[in-house]
Amino acid sequence: DEIRIHARDVVLREIERHAADGLGKVDYALASGGARVVWHSEPYDLGMSSWIPMGKGRNGIHTNAHKMLEPSFGEPGQCFPLRGNTGFVEIQLRTAIILDSVTLEHVAKSVAYDRSSAPRDCRISAWFEPPGGAGDDDRSTGIKRMPPVMEFTYDLEKSNAQTFNMVMAGTGVINMVRFDFSSNHGSSSHTCIYRLRVHGHDPKSLVTMAVQA
Amino acid sequence: DEIRIHARDVVLREIERHAADGLGKVDYALASGGARVVWHSEPYDLGMSSWIPMGKGRNGIHTNAHKMLEPSFGEPGQCFPLRGNTGFVEIQLRTAIILDSVTLEHVAKSVAYDRSSAPRDCRISAWFEPPGGAGDDDRSTGIKRMPPVMEFTYDLEKSNAQTFNMVMAGTGVINMVRFDFSSNHGSSSHTCIYRLRVHGHDPKSLVTMAVQA
Amino acid sequence: DEIRIHARDVVLREIERHAADGLGKVDYALASGGARVVWHSEPYDLGMSSWIPMGKGRNGIHTNAHKMLEPSFGEPGQCFPLRGNTGFVEIQLRTAIILDSVTLEHVAKSVAYDRSSAPRDCRISAWFEPPGGAGDDDRSTGIKRMPPVMEFTYDLEKSNAQTFNMVMAGTGVINMVRFDFSSNHGSSSHTCIYRLRVHGHDPKSLVTMAVQA
Ligand SMILES: [K+]
Ligand SMILES: [K+]
Ligand SMILES: [K+]
Repeated sequence: DEIRIHARDVVLREIERHAADGLGKVDYALASGGARVVWHSEPYDLGMSSWIPMGKGRNGIHTNAHKMLEPSFGEPGQCFPLRGNTGFVEIQLRTAIILDSVTLEHVAKSVAYDRSSAPRDCRISAWFEPPGGAGDDDRSTGIKRMPPVMEFTYDLEKSNAQTFNMVMAGTGVINMVRFDFSSNHGSSSHTCIYRLRVHGHDPKSLVTMAVQA
Repeated sequence: DEIRIHARDVVLREIERHAADGLGKVDYALASGGARVVWHSEPYDLGMSSWIPMGKGRNGIHTNAHKMLEPSFGEPGQCFPLRGNTGFVEIQLRTAIILDSVTLEHVAKSVAYDRSSAPRDCRISAWFEPPGGAGDDDRSTGIKRMPPVMEFTYDLEKSNAQTFNMVMAGTGVINMVRFDFSSNHGSSSHTCIYRLRVHGHDPKSLVTMAVQA
Repeated sequence: DEIRIHARDVVLREIERHAADGLGKVDYALASGGARVVWHSEPYDLGMSSWIPMGKGRNGIHTNAHKMLEPSFGEPGQCFPLRGNTGFVEIQLRTAIILDSVTLEHVAKSVAYDRSSAPRDCRISAWFEPPGGAGDDDRSTGIKRMPPVMEFTYDLEKSNAQTFNMVMAGTGVINMVRFDFSSNHGSSSHTCIYRLRVHGHDPKSLVTMAVQA
């Protein structure tokens, strides 16, 4: 009987975590929370009709790029395919944070059409950019290059949402994160990005906690 | 071994309940079921572009108001923000029902950006209004005032979807429900409504049951 | 303690399966994977505004027909209603496969408004059609008739997603599947199709496996 109660507790706690976006970690790269993709490498051909070049500034952001910043549940098509076996994505976060970790999620093994397009090696850069600043011009001229703050390898044998923690000293307050994918799991034609998340702490809430303490 | 079978039973039953909209209760305020928001207090500034005043009749229904009547899974941005620390929402249900209970859901604690905008004290009114009747004119002139049928307090320490049952004598058959929020959990700028549900019984199905019995 | 670890294992495995589209089976009829409805019987009246006749070729595909090929979570309104107590749906799969099984899902009992509109008896046909071929003309003239490869009955007392396996000899490689519903669970006005899935194996991946072995 004690076991039954315990079993139910475990179940309810794990379902609650599942319902809370699977990880129970705040995601500052969530599209519905105000984050957005501001740059990415060339997408894989999805038919010309859905590819809309958008001029200087926001140039070249595909209308489906937001899929990388949205939860999906076992739907292999809800990813964004980058051309080739390398690529990158730059995200403007909802707000400035102190970076803790990032999560890379691929569609679950049991429902995937093909897992050779999953990303493999990835490097993360992060920096602060004044909202509405000159960042877009830098992007169009390709000048900005930031040192990486983190590297990881996505492992197809582990859970489909894999979180990687910062190990080096902090980056200070940042609101931009770039994922550079330098390899995938075998496809030469494309690399599918199913979902990217960015975790950390709002520096304003830390100040509040310090003042309250 | 018996324990294993029992554990699996508990798990499958709870996952089934989770998959059945989390509560396993019919929701007559579900947007995809035909319910809709017919009036609400002033929304919090989301940028003018997404706010479309719509003239007399359906005047002032924000294009995002339906988010309050839709399920979301751990996405803090899928709410509708009302301006200030009080506000109201009026819902025309999918069909006329005998009211049992209502559910107020806020985004899960573990993924929320900020919980001070969660509603706190709430009063429910409910009435019947002929579909396509003069209700909209009443709303625009602000005459209609219904006595409350229920009051509750949303508790941030409890589960994120909280159901409150009618305690007083029934309201008869109703198809309109109004939520009046008289306080929130601390934010002075806005009150976020993540999801509202309305539960009850279809009086036609009661008649059918009585006839069959 | 061993029991606790075991209980957690069961829970995590079942939640993983739930998160992987509920069944953990690849679905070649998923809209986001590229499948689409190419023909269906007359829909139940949803108001004329949402019914858009679309001329010869793709004629008569309702703008909501894709709902049958999309996951939904406890939302009774996310179905596609066919007029009457019989009807059919034809699906062009994402890719050509060797057919194993199909899944018919109705909304969960605990949140359904009405279950008399659930389909009951169903016959499956499957064939190959060259993409972009003359299939649409055949459909508009109503000539094509394929022999059924499978029959089943959807049982309201069982789980809401029911999978039915092929028992007869294989159909070879197919990319088209037709569901013929010959009865429902009581409604005379309409039959609601909540979700259809098609499972099987990509013949190209079989070749690859054989070559690797
Ligand atoms: K996604
Ligand atoms: K919502
Ligand atoms: K659906």
